Amino acid sequence: MRLHQAQSVLLMIDFQAGLLPVIEGGEAAIKEAAWLAGIASELQVPIWLTEQYPERLGGTAPALLDGLGQHEVWQKLHFSATEEAPFTQALAALERKQVVVCGTEAHICVLQSALGLLEAGYEVFWLSEATASRRPEEARLARERACANGAVAVTADMVAYEWLYRCDTATFKEVHQRFLKPRSAQAVTFY
Amino acid sequence: MRLHQAQSVLLMIDFQAGLLPVIEGGEAAIKEAAWLAGIASELQVPIWLTEQYPERLGGTAPALLDGLGQHEVWQKLHFSATEEAPFTQALAALERKQVVVCGTEAHICVLQSALGLLEAGYEVFWLSEATASRRPEEARLARERACANGAVAVTADMVAYEWLYRCDTATFKEVHQRFLKPRSAQAVTFY
Amino acid sequence: MRLHQAQSVLLMIDFQAGLLPVIEGGEAAIKEAAWLAGIASELQVPIWLTEQYPERLGGTAPALLDGLGQHEVWQKLHFSATEEAPFTQALAALERKQVVVCGTEAHICVLQSALGLLEAGYEVFWLSEATASRRPEEARLARERACANGAVAVTADMVAYEWLYRCDTATFKEVHQRFLKPRSAQAVTFY
Amino acid sequence: MRLHQAQSVLLMIDFQAGLLPVIEGGEAAIKEAAWLAGIASELQVPIWLTEQYPERLGGTAPALLDGLGQHEVWQKLHFSATEEAPFTQALAALERKQVVVCGTEAHICVLQSALGLLEAGYEVFWLSEATASRRPEEARLARERACANGAVAVTADMVAYEWLYRCDTATFKEVHQRFLKPRSAQAVTFY
Repeated sequence: MRLHQAQSVLLMIDFQAGLLPVIEGGEAAIKEAAWLAGIASELQVPIWLTEQYPERLGGTAPALLDGLGQHEVWQKLHFSATEEAPFTQALAALERKQVVVCGTEAHICVLQSALGLLEAGYEVFWLSEATASRRPEEARLARERACANGAVAVTADMVAYEWLYRCDTATFKEVHQRFLKPRSAQAVTFY
Repeated sequence: MRLHQAQSVLLMIDFQAGLLPVIEGGEAAIKEAAWLAGIASELQVPIWLTEQYPERLGGTAPALLDGLGQHEVWQKLHFSATEEAPFTQALAALERKQVVVCGTEAHICVLQSALGLLEAGYEVFWLSEATASRRPEEARLARERACANGAVAVTADMVAYEWLYRCDTATFKEVHQRFLKPRSAQAVTFY
Repeated sequence: MRLHQAQSVLLMIDFQAGLLPVIEGGEAAIKEAAWLAGIASELQVPIWLTEQYPERLGGTAPALLDGLGQHEVWQKLHFSATEEAPFTQALAALERKQVVVCGTEAHICVLQSALGLLEAGYEVFWLSEATASRRPEEARLARERACANGAVAVTADMVAYEWLYRCDTATFKEVHQRFLKPRSAQAVTFY
Repeated sequence: MRLHQAQSVLLMIDFQAGLLPVIEGGEAAIKEAAWLAGIASELQVPIWLTEQYPERLGGTAPALLDGLGQHEVWQKLHFSATEEAPFTQALAALERKQVVVCGTEAHICVLQSALGLLEAGYEVFWLSEATASRRPEEARLARERACANGAVAVTADMVAYEWLYRCDTATFKEVHQRFLKPRSAQAVTFY
């Protein structure tokens, strides 16, 4: 199954200031998530954030919040976002069945949320390079477990090009100029 | 599928004194298993041990038994625990459908037991880092084969947080203080 | 499922001059694809090429076109070839259900085309060593995702021997002499 | 699914003198296959060999034949043994549904035979360490493809202990003494 812009939600789990310093690869994960969030904003894909027990773990990291477009923040006490009724009801109300997940820690809150979403019938896309744990081995096993349960591992580039769908639109040119081209010395100029 | 405390059993296969000296990573496996067993005790998850032909291979290793809470020990002659009727009848009587398996050797007694449990309809969670063989390559292939048959590879941390379910309980605080926090220099203080 | 010569199409996605210089392993991918295309020609397996927005990305690379036998070229604006009606109609008209895919970039146009073909009911064979992306990690994840959706990863050698089916034919001897034997210092002389 | 002695056949594909010199890891594969064949003989598991076009590729390698117990040899011209009617009819007549496959080359004759057996309804066990190709990468991809189609990757040790089933029999003691114990400096004395 491919991603469709009109069916997608970008869900960023617990990218919190109190967690990030101990996460292996946490900064790179934030950077990757922020890049895709920029494209999501451009394409009107809803951006949702969760925060686990923010009184203790702090709010969402400034590295992600700075420059982030319109978004919603959901606080939670369960490790899985899907155990919080307001979140699940609001998500159902969006009527979008494809959820791109990322965040920290891969093997705790991201994994439990992904499994809960799969159980609820959503298509779950695991944004590998924007998902991290204290131990990289656990991030890897979390991805494998999510995928064994039906999630699909993706890169931000895959998501972007599937949302964009075709190359002869004004939207593609805009996103290409602002996001795709600047990202890499090897960006293809016109695709 | 996620793990639930009320549905789980922790099954530790053949961590026996006569086997451990030849197992690659045997000590680390015991340590991982013992850590999760401590949490299982705290959460009233039944802890079951098997011993293969103990007259020859010796009893369960002291490194696991020392400090282990309430548990049951099952002796066996078949490589798979599921071929021993008293074991399978008692397990059915528990009415818990999720079995977290670990032990030695991964590719013989743990694997055969896991496959037998899957055939009998249990959900099997393969505790990768607490499961070992003489040759690490065989432990890896055993995990792959178990997973190809429906088992789910997990880490002890995954299991612990799924059993704990939410962070605003007295149980979480107790387990966090005694098990989660001391485990790593990078433990998150409050989660 | 095995490949059958009479059911196969070789589909080469966007091996374009404007893309190749930035593709990691692009030259090796072209070489592998060209080798299999030679055998496809010999066995009357249709060879189809796509080109993404050739005004911008250039036509198919000369390294592939030079010496290429009879083939058809399809231009496209969607990243997935399956979103272009003339392509999908012509493919259906071939009445061949096995599509061997390769090309660049693995995680964009090859992946989207492969997923589209799978959705349309084709058997898709992912020619790993003839499929590449700017970042090798994305080529790997693209293959994993295609396979999780039902594609089958193959090598050119696998495809060749499945098309050839048996070793006691004049066709085998011809293909062996011209393609199999020269390929490697370790070629088996008579198979 | 576990292996059962009474349901198994050991099928060794094309371990031929003319192929072995160019196979990466060919000698180790033969050694592994010969070790398991010794146990198969002891347990009355039928041992079948195939030879591809022996006039050209030579007969089965002496390293495998020397000391090999009762066995049957099938010559073939198709790369897949399952395309030879006498072979498939005789296999069906055995009324054993579990086939342990190994041999050379992994990605050609072993793979095609394994896929053919799976299509015919057999359970196929891929003996990884006794299966090899000129390029190890192709042996790895062949295993992945076979497993994606339903085959199960196993080691010789897994097969042996599943066939043996329990440790308190005269057969186990005999096989342990002759095969399991001598194999490794780390053999467990009594299991």
